[in-house]
Amino acid sequence: MRATLIHGPGDIRLEEVPDPQIQVPTDAVVRVTASCVCGSDLWPYRGVRPTKRPRRIGHELIGVVEDVGSEVTTVRRGDFVVAPFALSDGTCAHCRHGVQTSCERGAAWGATDRDGYLVDGGQGEAVRVAMADGTLVAVPGHPDDAMLPSLLALSDVMGTGHHAALAAGVGPGQTVVVVGDGAVGLCAVLAARRLGAERVIAMSRHTARQAVALDLGADDVVAERGEEGVARIEELTGGVGADAVLECVGMKESMEQAIGATRPGGRVGYVGVPAGGAELPIAQLFSDNISVGGGVAPVRQYLPELLEDVLSGAIEPGKVFDVELPLSEVATAYTAMDQRTAIKTLLRP
Amino acid sequence: MRATLIHGPGDIRLEEVPDPQIQVPTDAVVRVTASCVCGSDLWPYRGVRPTKRPRRIGHELIGVVEDVGSEVTTVRRGDFVVAPFALSDGTCAHCRHGVQTSCERGAAWGATDRDGYLVDGGQGEAVRVAMADGTLVAVPGHPDDAMLPSLLALSDVMGTGHHAALAAGVGPGQTVVVVGDGAVGLCAVLAARRLGAERVIAMSRHTARQAVALDLGADDVVAERGEEGVARIEELTGGVGADAVLECVGMKESMEQAIGATRPGGRVGYVGVPAGGAELPIAQLFSDNISVGGGVAPVRQYLPELLEDVLSGAIEPGKVFDVELPLSEVATAYTAMDQRTAIKTLLRP
Repeated sequence: MRATLIHGPGDIRLEEVPDPQIQVPTDAVVRVTASCVCGSDLWPYRGVRPTKRPRRIGHELIGVVEDVGSEVTTVRRGDFVVAPFALSDGTCAHCRHGVQTSCERGAAWGATDRDGYLVDGGQGEAVRVAMADGTLVAVPGHPDDAMLPSLLALSDVMGTGHHAALAAGVGPGQTVVVVGDGAVGLCAVLAARRLGAERVIAMSRHTARQAVALDLGADDVVAERGEEGVARIEELTGGVGADAVLECVGMKESMEQAIGATRPGGRVGYVGVPAGGAELPIAQLFSDNISVGGGVAPVRQYLPELLEDVLSGAIEPGKVFDVELPLSEVATAYTAMDQRTAIKTLLRP
Repeated sequence: MRATLIHGPGDIRLEEVPDPQIQVPTDAVVRVTASCVCGSDLWPYRGVRPTKRPRRIGHELIGVVEDVGSEVTTVRRGDFVVAPFALSDGTCAHCRHGVQTSCERGAAWGATDRDGYLVDGGQGEAVRVAMADGTLVAVPGHPDDAMLPSLLALSDVMGTGHHAALAAGVGPGQTVVVVGDGAVGLCAVLAARRLGAERVIAMSRHTARQAVALDLGADDVVAERGEEGVARIEELTGGVGADAVLECVGMKESMEQAIGATRPGGRVGYVGVPAGGAELPIAQLFSDNISVGGGVAPVRQYLPELLEDVLSGAIEPGKVFDVELPLSEVATAYTAMDQRTAIKTLLRP
């Protein structure tokens, strides 16, 4: 089959690789219907994280189960499934606490699992899925083509935005600010609205992204950044600050902006992978009673609940995909993401 | 009247000062029944924080209202009152959000308020109380002598321990670890128990403090510190870590210990004033989904609820006072706290 490998900065190649096969009885093999490129894939693409040797890449996918090992009980051949961006056994203490990203036997797409076998990367034609029962979630029936983008968004960005909102304690009556207008930030707008926020303010400078934010439920858009952005939030909240701020970038500047926009006693929920230099100003957090929570989102935990809302049409997180390409043009998909000409690119093998 | 002043490191003096008087119509004057020395009073005492000129000190007190300004409506002459460690108007947006420590017109004991008048320090015979309606809480009737320590504990340490527990999301079924065996840490044990924690583990090396922790509801005591302490918590929690950890010290080491003892997805509630060097390791917090919340406790917010439990006998936070001295021996009270021969010293004018 064909799968995507990254060879180094800016070097993305679709190559012929061995077909995935069941290796242990808890495995499944899934034929990929759609995958996509994540903001975090851009880190090695931009050389921010080194690529020591060519490796598989991609961690978001939906598809159809092609084969299952003898111990798999929750999905079967022919099932349409959503795969979250991390693999987990679903049974360890951390999984039972709903923190599947800390699974004791956790594995990552494109890397070797604890049994010593490669888990294929998501940007390919098919994948071996370790711990299929713990990892995959079956979609009832066979979804329409129109629903595929929203199902694919459940693989990462929608669950991640939801995690930011939960970590910030978003609830009815609240004023919520979202820092970051990537696919995760836009999904965070939708998640805040879904959790009952009274007012959602999206911080974005890009017209196209502002439009998506408004479409997904933002009430206001603030184009200013940094101190000016914080001043604008203060103005919009009568000098008080926001109850909850969702940080969906991961830079020092965006975290400062998030904390600055939060009212005393409020919460920052952060899901932007902290880039170098991100620090938490403990003295300010302490005196203002601002809490900071979040992290790498346990998307698997939220999948059943969010899937229900996608199937009912209550939410449409697939709106964050604004470009669709065949897998053969995966390198172009990276370029579009890197140059920010695309919010998020969907790939079809 | 007599009041305590700090002149510099180790230099505590009881001096003759002017009697407090109503200055603005929202003031009250309170005759102090009991006050005490706080761990944070030791910072200037130890020279960790400079004392530029002699100044009043003490921020915890209970007493009887002696006089009220014409606009005071919630307390009157003769009322027995508890004063929280920060003064607040009770009406601004932050007060209405329950974060009275961020009051827009907030004031501090022993310092000048926004009207330009001195608010007396707590370690004296009487105090002028600014914003009496927002600050003071009246106790019904006149409490027994035996209840005074528990009422005085509501002025700071019990509310602060409770804040740590709330910030860490303590609730039924949880395993809670308390880092710090000062009066706040011991009250945090009581607060965690009161909020329904299933198991409370106190970290303390001092036999006398261990005994108080057990008396206030701890199930286990861990004497080890640092990495050894973290390893012991891991052992006691089946390798998982605690659901909630209450950090009641404020040092770099104690914060590391608190974060290390928390399970993935768990929460640290911190109320120890961050000393220099305290930092939050964002990469670890992110990958383990550990949230950090807390800060300077809005004790005024919790006073009515905790007062009810003290009056009913449900909680007895006054057990943290193990030494009682007349105000004339206030310098000795500081020595006892500084040398850790006392957990907390109660002072009677």
